[in-house]
Amino acid sequence: MNSTTINFRLGELIGAALAEDLGHGDITTQALVDTRLRCHAQVWAKDDGVVSGINVFRHVFDRLESDITDWTALHDGEAYEAGMVVAAFEGRAQTVLMGERVALNLLQRLSGIAGLTAEYVKAAEGHGAAICDTRKTTPLWRSLEKQAVVHGGGRNHRFGLYDGVLIKENHIEACGGIGTAVRRAQENTHHLTRIQVEVQSLEDLGEAVAAGADAALLDHMDNDTLAEAVKQGKAAGIILEASGNMTLGRIPSVAATGVDIISVGALTHSAPAADFSMIIQTV
Amino acid sequence: MNSTTINFRLGELIGAALAEDLGHGDITTQALVDTRLRCHAQVWAKDDGVVSGINVFRHVFDRLESDITDWTALHDGEAYEAGMVVAAFEGRAQTVLMGERVALNLLQRLSGIAGLTAEYVKAAEGHGAAICDTRKTTPLWRSLEKQAVVHGGGRNHRFGLYDGVLIKENHIEACGGIGTAVRRAQENTHHLTRIQVEVQSLEDLGEAVAAGADAALLDHMDNDTLAEAVKQGKAAGIILEASGNMTLGRIPSVAATGVDIISVGALTHSAPAADFSMIIQTV
Amino acid sequence: MNSTTINFRLGELIGAALAEDLGHGDITTQALVDTRLRCHAQVWAKDDGVVSGINVFRHVFDRLESDITDWTALHDGEAYEAGMVVAAFEGRAQTVLMGERVALNLLQRLSGIAGLTAEYVKAAEGHGAAICDTRKTTPLWRSLEKQAVVHGGGRNHRFGLYDGVLIKENHIEACGGIGTAVRRAQENTHHLTRIQVEVQSLEDLGEAVAAGADAALLDHMDNDTLAEAVKQGKAAGIILEASGNMTLGRIPSVAATGVDIISVGALTHSAPAADFSMIIQTV
Amino acid sequence: MNSTTINFRLGELIGAALAEDLGHGDITTQALVDTRLRCHAQVWAKDDGVVSGINVFRHVFDRLESDITDWTALHDGEAYEAGMVVAAFEGRAQTVLMGERVALNLLQRLSGIAGLTAEYVKAAEGHGAAICDTRKTTPLWRSLEKQAVVHGGGRNHRFGLYDGVLIKENHIEACGGIGTAVRRAQENTHHLTRIQVEVQSLEDLGEAVAAGADAALLDHMDNDTLAEAVKQGKAAGIILEASGNMTLGRIPSVAATGVDIISVGALTHSAPAADFSMIIQTV
Amino acid sequence: MNSTTINFRLGELIGAALAEDLGHGDITTQALVDTRLRCHAQVWAKDDGVVSGINVFRHVFDRLESDITDWTALHDGEAYEAGMVVAAFEGRAQTVLMGERVALNLLQRLSGIAGLTAEYVKAAEGHGAAICDTRKTTPLWRSLEKQAVVHGGGRNHRFGLYDGVLIKENHIEACGGIGTAVRRAQENTHHLTRIQVEVQSLEDLGEAVAAGADAALLDHMDNDTLAEAVKQGKAAGIILEASGNMTLGRIPSVAATGVDIISVGALTHSAPAADFSMIIQTV
Amino acid sequence: MNSTTINFRLGELIGAALAEDLGHGDITTQALVDTRLRCHAQVWAKDDGVVSGINVFRHVFDRLESDITDWTALHDGEAYEAGMVVAAFEGRAQTVLMGERVALNLLQRLSGIAGLTAEYVKAAEGHGAAICDTRKTTPLWRSLEKQAVVHGGGRNHRFGLYDGVLIKENHIEACGGIGTAVRRAQENTHHLTRIQVEVQSLEDLGEAVAAGADAALLDHMDNDTLAEAVKQGKAAGIILEASGNMTLGRIPSVAATGVDIISVGALTHSAPAADFSMIIQTV
Repeated sequence: MNSTTINFRLGELIGAALAEDLGHGDITTQALVDTRLRCHAQVWAKDDGVVSGINVFRHVFDRLESDITDWTALHDGEAYEAGMVVAAFEGRAQTVLMGERVALNLLQRLSGIAGLTAEYVKAAEGHGAAICDTRKTTPLWRSLEKQAVVHGGGRNHRFGLYDGVLIKENHIEACGGIGTAVRRAQENTHHLTRIQVEVQSLEDLGEAVAAGADAALLDHMDNDTLAEAVKQGKAAGIILEASGNMTLGRIPSVAATGVDIISVGALTHSAPAADFSMIIQTV
Repeated sequence: MNSTTINFRLGELIGAALAEDLGHGDITTQALVDTRLRCHAQVWAKDDGVVSGINVFRHVFDRLESDITDWTALHDGEAYEAGMVVAAFEGRAQTVLMGERVALNLLQRLSGIAGLTAEYVKAAEGHGAAICDTRKTTPLWRSLEKQAVVHGGGRNHRFGLYDGVLIKENHIEACGGIGTAVRRAQENTHHLTRIQVEVQSLEDLGEAVAAGADAALLDHMDNDTLAEAVKQGKAAGIILEASGNMTLGRIPSVAATGVDIISVGALTHSAPAADFSMIIQTV
Repeated sequence: MNSTTINFRLGELIGAALAEDLGHGDITTQALVDTRLRCHAQVWAKDDGVVSGINVFRHVFDRLESDITDWTALHDGEAYEAGMVVAAFEGRAQTVLMGERVALNLLQRLSGIAGLTAEYVKAAEGHGAAICDTRKTTPLWRSLEKQAVVHGGGRNHRFGLYDGVLIKENHIEACGGIGTAVRRAQENTHHLTRIQVEVQSLEDLGEAVAAGADAALLDHMDNDTLAEAVKQGKAAGIILEASGNMTLGRIPSVAATGVDIISVGALTHSAPAADFSMIIQTV
Repeated sequence: MNSTTINFRLGELIGAALAEDLGHGDITTQALVDTRLRCHAQVWAKDDGVVSGINVFRHVFDRLESDITDWTALHDGEAYEAGMVVAAFEGRAQTVLMGERVALNLLQRLSGIAGLTAEYVKAAEGHGAAICDTRKTTPLWRSLEKQAVVHGGGRNHRFGLYDGVLIKENHIEACGGIGTAVRRAQENTHHLTRIQVEVQSLEDLGEAVAAGADAALLDHMDNDTLAEAVKQGKAAGIILEASGNMTLGRIPSVAATGVDIISVGALTHSAPAADFSMIIQTV
Repeated sequence: MNSTTINFRLGELIGAALAEDLGHGDITTQALVDTRLRCHAQVWAKDDGVVSGINVFRHVFDRLESDITDWTALHDGEAYEAGMVVAAFEGRAQTVLMGERVALNLLQRLSGIAGLTAEYVKAAEGHGAAICDTRKTTPLWRSLEKQAVVHGGGRNHRFGLYDGVLIKENHIEACGGIGTAVRRAQENTHHLTRIQVEVQSLEDLGEAVAAGADAALLDHMDNDTLAEAVKQGKAAGIILEASGNMTLGRIPSVAATGVDIISVGALTHSAPAADFSMIIQTV
Repeated sequence: MNSTTINFRLGELIGAALAEDLGHGDITTQALVDTRLRCHAQVWAKDDGVVSGINVFRHVFDRLESDITDWTALHDGEAYEAGMVVAAFEGRAQTVLMGERVALNLLQRLSGIAGLTAEYVKAAEGHGAAICDTRKTTPLWRSLEKQAVVHGGGRNHRFGLYDGVLIKENHIEACGGIGTAVRRAQENTHHLTRIQVEVQSLEDLGEAVAAGADAALLDHMDNDTLAEAVKQGKAAGIILEASGNMTLGRIPSVAATGVDIISVGALTHSAPAADFSMIIQTV
């Protein structure tokens, strides 16, 4: 439901992305194409996947004042198959060609994330574990990438360092122990923030529970340890997240341990781009 | 040799990336870690690869005024093996933890690109074909990603729509033919810009040569067609670039056709992130 | 402990504030004062209070390259009495005079907030209720104003609409009921965010508890109702915040009801500026 | 008459204020409220006062693309009484709720200033003295605050250090005397700028007049001294402004001394926020 | 044909230019002119010339929301004579007066450049030499100034240091010789960039040709040397540009030497402003 | 004396100017010149003139982190003769070459203005008339250009529409008469602003005086009319400025009429650039 905020600030990022590609101008298109010429454009998929970023794609052309008409497109979150037309529209040929690459770069990256997320979500099905993103996103594009995870059926973890307490191994090293860490977090953050602790072992988990943590991140544990952690954590009423080396193949067995959340950095840092192609016809 | 420009404008992008992650503050670290505490930090590799982005990584901490000392690190372009320490340094623990994720996100993405490029370069060895990037880069990070390709042994294609004429299929559609397109480009661009034409067939190639193109992009051709195009193109004295579906496995045979350049979008749009981990010890 | 983030982004805001006041230049000071002249400056208090913003005050002069030396000042959070010197330093007379008003405007506003907060904190003493700020802050200066509340002994509520769920009367109207609202919030926000509901009555409170809210904001209730709400809320294990018309005189009796938090908009929207004066002597 | 300039640059400030509050999104509203839902909204006053900032209030919702219709509101400068509806409109519920706090924070601050100014203006009535603001405004919001003073019936002093010469005690200290100061100002500023000198005594006033000052700021003088200063100043044909500790109660007697201007820092640095509340109904 | 890019980024520069002139407001116009008053405005020329910047001129008033109607104007590139009306329109009087100076400053500068270029182009007629600009443009206004050169009938040289290799005397000094310089440029720039070398003598020219340069800049040569250089250069198939002290009087004889390009810094760094005047009538 | 403000905001403008020229990098210099190489650089004059912008010139290289040492240069306002070295320094060769053009573009423009101003000042000598600039400056560079006028011995008029009331012919048309215009200005501007009226005739001048104007701009009058206007204006105690078609040759006779100020748009809109050249030697 949060298209508003995305739109509210999208202009600035898209503008900068266009400036990066256009510089003082698209010397090819501006030399070749008459400013009044209009064209019909189609974007078609070369593989199967899930769309994300279709509004962003559109926004690029609006920003270039392409005078888009006859817009039809899949909606974010819809699945597509190879050969399908993902978007079709008419607009000014010059600016359609000038914006094509930036528009596709974003659409391909975001749809790549949505598609990979959908695969993970499918692999986890039947056990109630949510597939979650991490903060391992592309700098400056986190909001869009986290939306792409939602479009793929996943859920979001915290958006940044500012909206959730996650005490990691390095924090524990820096303040001397899990107990001290949790207490300081309780004293210094507001009452609407839960506190999660990264634990390396069942012993750590016990300390976190004793200190009053609200959630635990079970880091790089094998499935047996995960299962035992879930048992102990559930008894204490805390939220349990598994993370670290969560390859697609391993997801079913991890989900079966009963964890609430499986977080996967690869969703955003290593998803291959979806493959789309745009062709135009002058009208 | 172009570290200067990168540094000149890096601050703004890094600042925005930090703002994205930090928002009004790192509520965990600021609640837990004393501002005066210092730590030793090590970044080690979990896989083999090629480093890129080490200056960017460092810059993140400088920007947060982490008072970094005892800095030792590999240089951009150096290969590393799993288990090696890629960077080690001492600094203020609070800001080292606050900048860790942004710094690693960039280092992992850029090293991922450098490493994948190195694999492509190796696959093309012995035939004189350069491995080249495309404009399919992450919006706003193109300069760094194109540097990463160089660190991996590749070469750069044009940086944007503004510094080289590349007449694509859609342009030809929009202005009616290869001949018209090349002529308009010659008339409307400055004398230091060469003109390249994307061709789908040997017939197209012939037209481009006849029109006076300086280079041809041989799009999605099989190896036999590529070889014939090379033969005809070399006779005409033009530069020959192969592109489209250039998977790693196909590179040796494409390189063997004698093309000057093989351009690969996957270098930047689908390189998996390199895997690094940072651990600190308080001092 | 979060001076780092404040400093990280302070420059931009201070720069804009100086630009607002200086425009194309301080025509008085630049016409009158030699650029090499140095002066000793003292800031003294005309009333009692609590200092906040002393680093911001200093930063203004650093930004104008005033070459400040011999800096001595109270620290944020320290109390002062009328007639005391709050800060003393030496610097370039021209830029000290150019920055004086912006520096004082910020120091006076922030110390005004810290001082008023301290009065509220004192009034609540002995009952365990925290005095909390709201989002009724001066646009663009929220981070500094929320720090001022901490300097005065208060605590912070959420920083914005992004880091905590607070379901208000208008939200309930817009989605049809407390139950629906809480459920949607649970489904659509991440696991580290608690959910608070604004309630107008004990009946509302009951609904919120039943729906699984983590905290309640008891809005504009009289003390008897507050006391009963505390009793019911504590039994349900939720956090209880009183708000609405929390004048200083009423604080002791509200605190005595046992609420966990008393939030006060006036701390930031209506605190009178602290009264400071700066005098210089040339050296 | 200067709504144009305010509008011309308002967008940037409002955008930054919204970004401060919204961050990556309004997690409550976006989780709860359907994007298509519309609502009717009313803002009503809890106290008497004078409106300022109604266009700014409206602008917030326009910027969030709230699709406002049926707008009716008081105009800036109009008085209102407790219980009156100050503004009523229909719009998209989601963005109306997202912008509410920023819009009200601005309206309440500006109306607070207009209301307090109106009280001062009334207290000075009958003597011809204008009530004037100072540069003790909220950093970054000076233009709007100075408009609020005009809406309350007051007048503006200079807008910054760049559009009027005001030689203060510290300037005199820095350049050695009133005579030197005035002469340097005459030599180094353009011919459309008048020169005002802050004076602490009748002796200072004599020096300022002798040096050719166009106006005097009578600083912290008692009423008898003010009256004598007015007599001497009028004889010399200069403008006379009283300032320093100008509490509301003292205004009638100060105005009676015959000064041209009474400037009051409290108008902008210590005006309590006006109290407004917004309620919505879905439609 | 490249109006799109200009428009895409024009807003920011025009906005900053207006902010420079308007500051907190146009105190004259806002004090004097009713916001609802409309006027008819005419811009007429006092000299002969060629128009450039008419869209920019218009954009200033659009940005101030002047509600322009009945717009008629010459098009960029059209010649005009003294006494002609260059643009006529109706709009809000207040903002038309507020934008007048910024709009005229740009129109006069750009038309000055177009007019001077037209004189150079005429002087070169009949020999096939293009009149070209340089990078000696007004900082921040290069794109518009280079367009003005095109409007005057000239052609553009490279747009910046990023889109063409021009090896100058200082570069040769810095890397030890023409041969080394050309080789390094070939190795380190992409395949769509040509390489030009500045030469001071026929000997230099020979070295450049031998090294494989694509173009030569013949610097400060007399006409006889130019003619000999053209002879040798044409034989080698390279592009020949004459530059340095290219006064208007000398152009015919330089053009007659057969050079391809004559580049003239004065087009942009020393063109006198065209003389326009705007008068309004209220309607 | 106002170097501070210039420096305070110079960075942003210089940064944008460098970005305009450098784009993604200086492909020539970065390909050719080793980053560690240092050079000695000299800037010498090809004509006589007056220096302005030397600090700006230096700032360009500092911003590129050129590590400048052994800096010697003339000071702003100093005269120079053809062949003199205006600045000499040592620095990193790569960034010295990268910044050269931007640095020289600014220095040449500003020194051009200072030199032309000096000629006008000399022409007016002996009559007490100040040579003044106008608002016909290069958009975004007004502050520097107005400083250049001061360096040439001239004086500044108002800096923008915000710091002085100048009622022009178009304003009078828009509000119905000189009397009304002056009265509205008196009522709506602060007490430190003088009011000037543009007059086309002695009759206009009489009206302006009668209305209480503080100054008159005598527009496009012949010398006899100017002399009469001076006589009448002096009698009324107002400031008299002559403007309109103030060519260098006419200045002595205009100055002899006794006007206080002669304002000349050509100082900033049509000054030819000063001619400087920079040569480097590697060290």
